[in-house]
Amino acid sequence: EWLYMSENGALPRLGKVLTADTMNANVKKVDYAVRGPIVQRAVQIEKELKEGVKKPFEEVIKANIGDAHAMGQRPITFFRQVMALCTYPLLLDDNKFPEDVKNRARRILQSCGGNSIGAYTTSQGIDCVRHDVANYIQRRDGGIPSDPDNIYLTTGASDGIVTILKLLNTGEGRTRTGVMISIPQYPLYSASIAELGAVQVNYYLNEEKCWSLDISELQRSLQAAREHCNPSVLCIINPGNPTGQVQSRQCIEDVIQFAAKENLFLMADEVYQDNVYAEGCEFHSFKKVLFEMGPEYSSKVELASFHSTSKCYMGECGFRGGYMEVINMDPEVKAQLTKLVSVRLCPPAPGQALMDLVVNSPQPGEPSHQTFMKERTAILSALAEKAKLTEQILNTVPGISCNPVQGAMYSFPRITLPERSINEAKAKGQAPDMFYCMKLLEETGICLVPGSGFGQREGTYHFRMTILPPTDKLKTLLNKLKEFHQKFTQQYS
Amino acid sequence: EWLYMSENGALPRLGKVLTADTMNANVKKVDYAVRGPIVQRAVQIEKELKEGVKKPFEEVIKANIGDAHAMGQRPITFFRQVMALCTYPLLLDDNKFPEDVKNRARRILQSCGGNSIGAYTTSQGIDCVRHDVANYIQRRDGGIPSDPDNIYLTTGASDGIVTILKLLNTGEGRTRTGVMISIPQYPLYSASIAELGAVQVNYYLNEEKCWSLDISELQRSLQAAREHCNPSVLCIINPGNPTGQVQSRQCIEDVIQFAAKENLFLMADEVYQDNVYAEGCEFHSFKKVLFEMGPEYSSKVELASFHSTSKCYMGECGFRGGYMEVINMDPEVKAQLTKLVSVRLCPPAPGQALMDLVVNSPQPGEPSHQTFMKERTAILSALAEKAKLTEQILNTVPGISCNPVQGAMYSFPRITLPERSINEAKAKGQAPDMFYCMKLLEETGICLVPGSGFGQREGTYHFRMTILPPTDKLKTLLNKLKEFHQKFTQQYS
Ligand SMILES: Cc1ncc(COP(=O)(O)O)c(C=O)c1O
Ligand SMILES: Cc1ncc(COP(=O)(O)O)c(C=O)c1O
Repeated sequence: EWLYMSENGALPRLGKVLTADTMNANVKKVDYAVRGPIVQRAVQIEKELKEGVKKPFEEVIKANIGDAHAMGQRPITFFRQVMALCTYPLLLDDNKFPEDVKNRARRILQSCGGNSIGAYTTSQGIDCVRHDVANYIQRRDGGIPSDPDNIYLTTGASDGIVTILKLLNTGEGRTRTGVMISIPQYPLYSASIAELGAVQVNYYLNEEKCWSLDISELQRSLQAAREHCNPSVLCIINPGNPTGQVQSRQCIEDVIQFAAKENLFLMADEVYQDNVYAEGCEFHSFKKVLFEMGPEYSSKVELASFHSTSKCYMGECGFRGGYMEVINMDPEVKAQLTKLVSVRLCPPAPGQALMDLVVNSPQPGEPSHQTFMKERTAILSALAEKAKLTEQILNTVPGISCNPVQGAMYSFPRITLPERSINEAKAKGQAPDMFYCMKLLEETGICLVPGSGFGQREGTYHFRMTILPPTDKLKTLLNKLKEFHQKFTQQYS
Repeated sequence: EWLYMSENGALPRLGKVLTADTMNANVKKVDYAVRGPIVQRAVQIEKELKEGVKKPFEEVIKANIGDAHAMGQRPITFFRQVMALCTYPLLLDDNKFPEDVKNRARRILQSCGGNSIGAYTTSQGIDCVRHDVANYIQRRDGGIPSDPDNIYLTTGASDGIVTILKLLNTGEGRTRTGVMISIPQYPLYSASIAELGAVQVNYYLNEEKCWSLDISELQRSLQAAREHCNPSVLCIINPGNPTGQVQSRQCIEDVIQFAAKENLFLMADEVYQDNVYAEGCEFHSFKKVLFEMGPEYSSKVELASFHSTSKCYMGECGFRGGYMEVINMDPEVKAQLTKLVSVRLCPPAPGQALMDLVVNSPQPGEPSHQTFMKERTAILSALAEKAKLTEQILNTVPGISCNPVQGAMYSFPRITLPERSINEAKAKGQAPDMFYCMKLLEETGICLVPGSGFGQREGTYHFRMTILPPTDKLKTLLNKLKEFHQKFTQQYS
């Protein structure tokens, strides 16, 4: 009867089912520097400090990740008030809360199953939220229409990006999907490409021209890729992470023309759309430029663009809200996309509600408008100031050169490393800028991400640093960094 | 200069990049009945009713998905109060809220970056939440230890399940990973297996014995699968969805023995662990049974078990909270898992906070305890009553036979369909029970999911119906269903 029992009931001696050898090999290839060894060590050091271990510093300053609230930024009052009412609707009877807060909460709850954000939503996202997103896009893009049917709410922008890459992922060997990404890049891209087993196709941003994008480099990269895979998608991050550049309207037009000509699907990562600081820079959405180029383009070029609650002035990363808009997607593919997202049921409802507030913020005349504008402006001006400050101080350090932080939340300065430190790193099997950042962390408590985590031209070295710490702390950080760099350079010269 | 521009500036005439032909073929194979055509039609009908279209019914009754709040279940007060305070911490000064609510909120906020649930958390999940989960498991399992390092918080159980399947997914052709799943199954499994391109290996539950699991059937299924793939993982849902059975301790022990003998990784989907209604039935976790079987098993068998905020008495689906515990996972694989989850940054913080409250609910003596217990008990007793009611009424209908709903939230009755209806369905290219459910929807407004969406033995027909509607509505539904079945049988006889 017990077919599977051996005579004496003993179990056969077998190893584990799931081991480093038997597991999914693509997963092993995944790399994710933003939360890599540096960050793990930083967490360890924080624990050691708590336990009373003596260090040459008192706290770890994390400038490794674009996580505004963790760096002390306060949430926008209006957003949190509405979210509290959505969460505990008895508060709708509380006089503490302004009428517009109550109205928003009621409106969101009415569009939830059983009037509860505890119900699953439709897989594509709550209807009224998708309508509000479409209205927002239309306003933002000077009236160019947006269809709520083309909006998918997501679990952060990350989720949307991975989902679109998944749809595009196909072929074997020379027909394998190639995904063109900028170098330096946000490592979600390389990680997802590795996980899917697609081919990463690098195009380099031009550091000399403020990290701008050259079409000739796109062309070079595409031609080279066609030798060994099927490059079918071009990813753009604008404003840029980790590089902080803001693309000109002309550049975007050129990219769209290139995509049209070369038959590439465009993915526009626009999560930093409110984070533009430099004079003369402005955010232009790919959608808007596409439609301004006329029907020859706007009826043809396939585009997915991504937004998130995590960045801009709100920095609500923990809620994992986001949306994507798909343009010119084949209707059959769209049906497949809708089916695919339904397997995971739905994005988190609180994140969807928060996304709604972001795209439908208090209007002039509403009771919350003034406070909202004050909070929003204060955050964005402080970021603009810190962008400037970062660039200025870093450029005073011999051996560090930093492009203007035109937008987003990061600087990605180039560092000159002494030959001896490079050799020592290599002897240790470490990337030279990882060696540098690890030493920086151990000696100063400053946590940055080495440029090698984002990709960079062979033989160049960088680090990424967020501009999110409060101004005072940022100044301290920059001055410590300056001091460290000088010491490090001396030590290894 | 514009290498890619043709002489006259015209674009080459190319089709779309992403089409049904060029897209990821695995995605096309994905099927997800719980949100399939029936549900889409139900949404349409609701719109039509709103627009005033006349129907033979006044509302759509959705018994297609385990979404408690959408069916009118009220959230647990304590959970929502704490969540409101976490969301808008100024409420910590409000006398309306009991002290234990405030303490929980403070504790959660203190473990968030910048004391905000708007910060990204560590990728594995908030430290204190993982500790609370481990303590909960230890209490639940009569003291068997649980290590917070083995706990991963997830975006609903769905996310955890897909992540573990991803790790296990490898090989080509005959070495491709085979995933053993029960038939009938919860279609997340078949969908994820299809998406990953793994091999679905079916084992059939025994409908005659109240949907129990026979080891001989596992053995048959495994042997057959070994002819064409590498079955390396066995998935169990207990209490069962869609079948509502609760596994005996003996059965679980047998399954573990089988997995040990055959070297299978075990995935235990235990999201319904509080949903046990039938006398003589009790929930036994795989973890507990594994450890009670002694070190020969407990030091060897690899197990991942899953839980969620979506089910049980709380029904907080929209928050997408969940956790998984991994046991005996190879340390290198665990490192890979931690890296993999870090790519998506973190699960939603509100879902994590809610999971914390579920595993750390009010204790006797705390101000919220009494209300909490009253609400919890009311919900679970009502479910128990509705489980009984559903079985009883369905079994009065000639041509419907329904196993006891021992647990979970569903009945999965077998229906006898007249030959002529089967032929008519087949002529339409529809599964016969899809044909039946679609007619039911059009004529009565009742929305169920056909058995074919979950899998069933060839030639048998079923539907899945949740027991979630309020008792009154459930009675109406069951009586309408009875009437419909009789009419349908007559019409096609
Ligand atoms: C360029 C870019 N895209 C996407 C994301 C993902 O953001 P989220 O998933 O939190 O929305 C980030 C986060 O830092 C980012 O910098
Ligand atoms: C057996 C089973 N597992 C997993 C899930 C997924 O639940 P969630 O992702 O909402 O936690 C469900 C949902 O119905 C289920 O029934």
